[in-house]
Amino acid sequence: MKITPIIASLSKPTYKQFFRDITEYHEILSQIHPVDPELSYAYLVEQINAYRAEVLLTGWGSVSLPESFLQDCPTIRYVCHITGELRWLLPRSLIQDGLLVTNWGSVISDNVAEAALFLILACCRRAANAVMTMHIRHGWDLNVEPPVSLLDKRVGIHGFGNVAQQLTLLLKPFRCSISAYSPPVPDAIFEAFSTKRETSLEHLFEANDVIVELEAFTNHTERLVGKSLLDRVRPGGVFVNAGRGKVVCEQDLEEVASRGIIFVGLDVFSQEPLLPDSPLRGLENVFLTPHFAGPTADRISLCGKHALANILAYHLGDPLDSVIGVSEYDRMT
Amino acid sequence: MKITPIIASLSKPTYKQFFRDITEYHEILSQIHPVDPELSYAYLVEQINAYRAEVLLTGWGSVSLPESFLQDCPTIRYVCHITGELRWLLPRSLIQDGLLVTNWGSVISDNVAEAALFLILACCRRAANAVMTMHIRHGWDLNVEPPVSLLDKRVGIHGFGNVAQQLTLLLKPFRCSISAYSPPVPDAIFEAFSTKRETSLEHLFEANDVIVELEAFTNHTERLVGKSLLDRVRPGGVFVNAGRGKVVCEQDLEEVASRGIIFVGLDVFSQEPLLPDSPLRGLENVFLTPHFAGPTADRISLCGKHALANILAYHLGDPLDSVIGVSEYDRMT
Repeated sequence: MKITPIIASLSKPTYKQFFRDITEYHEILSQIHPVDPELSYAYLVEQINAYRAEVLLTGWGSVSLPESFLQDCPTIRYVCHITGELRWLLPRSLIQDGLLVTNWGSVISDNVAEAALFLILACCRRAANAVMTMHIRHGWDLNVEPPVSLLDKRVGIHGFGNVAQQLTLLLKPFRCSISAYSPPVPDAIFEAFSTKRETSLEHLFEANDVIVELEAFTNHTERLVGKSLLDRVRPGGVFVNAGRGKVVCEQDLEEVASRGIIFVGLDVFSQEPLLPDSPLRGLENVFLTPHFAGPTADRISLCGKHALANILAYHLGDPLDSVIGVSEYDRMT
Repeated sequence: MKITPIIASLSKPTYKQFFRDITEYHEILSQIHPVDPELSYAYLVEQINAYRAEVLLTGWGSVSLPESFLQDCPTIRYVCHITGELRWLLPRSLIQDGLLVTNWGSVISDNVAEAALFLILACCRRAANAVMTMHIRHGWDLNVEPPVSLLDKRVGIHGFGNVAQQLTLLLKPFRCSISAYSPPVPDAIFEAFSTKRETSLEHLFEANDVIVELEAFTNHTERLVGKSLLDRVRPGGVFVNAGRGKVVCEQDLEEVASRGIIFVGLDVFSQEPLLPDSPLRGLENVFLTPHFAGPTADRISLCGKHALANILAYHLGDPLDSVIGVSEYDRMT
């Protein structure tokens, strides 16, 4: 089997991040020709055609592909996307036209779930208040409600995709009772992860001690979580968003959080970077992280490896992992 | 069976904390006579003798008992200590003289282990730097090494008592390889918790990504963890202390931490409250919490319940849980 030339629309730092630590797949790596994504789409097309490339490697910061991509580059068969989101990368019509597309699938789901668990514990343990007390005020006594445990608590998850499923595994030794709201996910998956199906978002928010937001961002879910849901979180309860910032109405969340009655952990925001004057900053019942619920530095090469394994499978005619068909495209976060 | 009068050397707030949420054991609770521990030992003796009490309930802040306690109060058979440490409460000789003593045993071990896991994740996720960046500097980009995952990491624990054992259960879904250094703990316990025995502290510190300090404080372990061990933590590695502050030479730790090369999570200190001008404060690779690795507010009544169950067992002539004999006393933290 001969590996055909591969064009990578990736910056040098991104390329290095994903492929630096990989010691296998030499033959594939030697066939990758990086094209600076700062250069134009026309230049990318020129390079693809010059190499008669069948495979295009994309990721964060790649050149966006227009509807005419398959006409412009008739040799292309497969776009191997090394990260997750790709609606900004290519229009739905290219998939309908038969372009094979994969992304990182569930490779980093446990890594993101870990960030969600950390945000939950940071809320339970009053982490923002602890840092402000110990590091800024040089004090000792917390000045919010005392820390609580996550053991034996009720956890409700909005969304039940790969990350939420992995989160249930991390929660297992905490003996939490877990429920989730996600109408499209079949019962068998709920059962496999010992999770109860919630039939309404209202009940999810009011019947749990901890609410975790992990729902995909779509037209349907945009600003879905507003005041009427957030007001249902019980006093002393925890609300964490490790999914998509735009699923939450941030103005409503600011208002509810500023009352200081619930504890909030946020990794994602309606606009990123979070605005310097966001009212969320400085609230000691609110723990903020700068969208780090993605692959951590030490696990990013797992995504690179996954992409290379898919490229190998493509050449062997084997089935690929995490193929994005039209329905997956439509459900993307 | 008749419950005999019980004297409690507990302040009102402590008594409430432990027994407020308990809805069972009415008969025992009705026999408890609290005696303000601010009053003298002589007054406590007077009350015990007035009630001819067999059982004394103690906890944080109780009156210390002298060697003459059993001569002073000849009816006393059993000291039910609702918390953990008790070397400050009573001398070893009282146990040798046949006084029955229990403490909270392993009731809150999972709760403390949870705090240890949180400190580990706070180090991995650069929590102090995140709070300072987001809340104080109103920024977005961390200015320490990027976050790392705990998944698949090597975790080394100094000490392998109840808390360490519970920590291995919380770490299970992270697929860490766990080792521990604790010569007195038998092989069977290491095997039961899928933990490798480390044969030297030096190797424990240098061969792991995360080191967790959970060793008991004794004459032998005082300031045992100093520069020569701390210097072995690998660059980017994590050192967490959720055990006893005095097991670590804090001056050495300050020096190693101030270099900013390792990430440190501390819940306990050589002097508590931590001094306002401690050089540990303000270091953004150091996450500090004010000794909260104990029972959280929502689980403290579990300790109260455990004490009441022991008092019931005492009256029924059943075996008690967490009896402190001479050897347990000697190994206490």
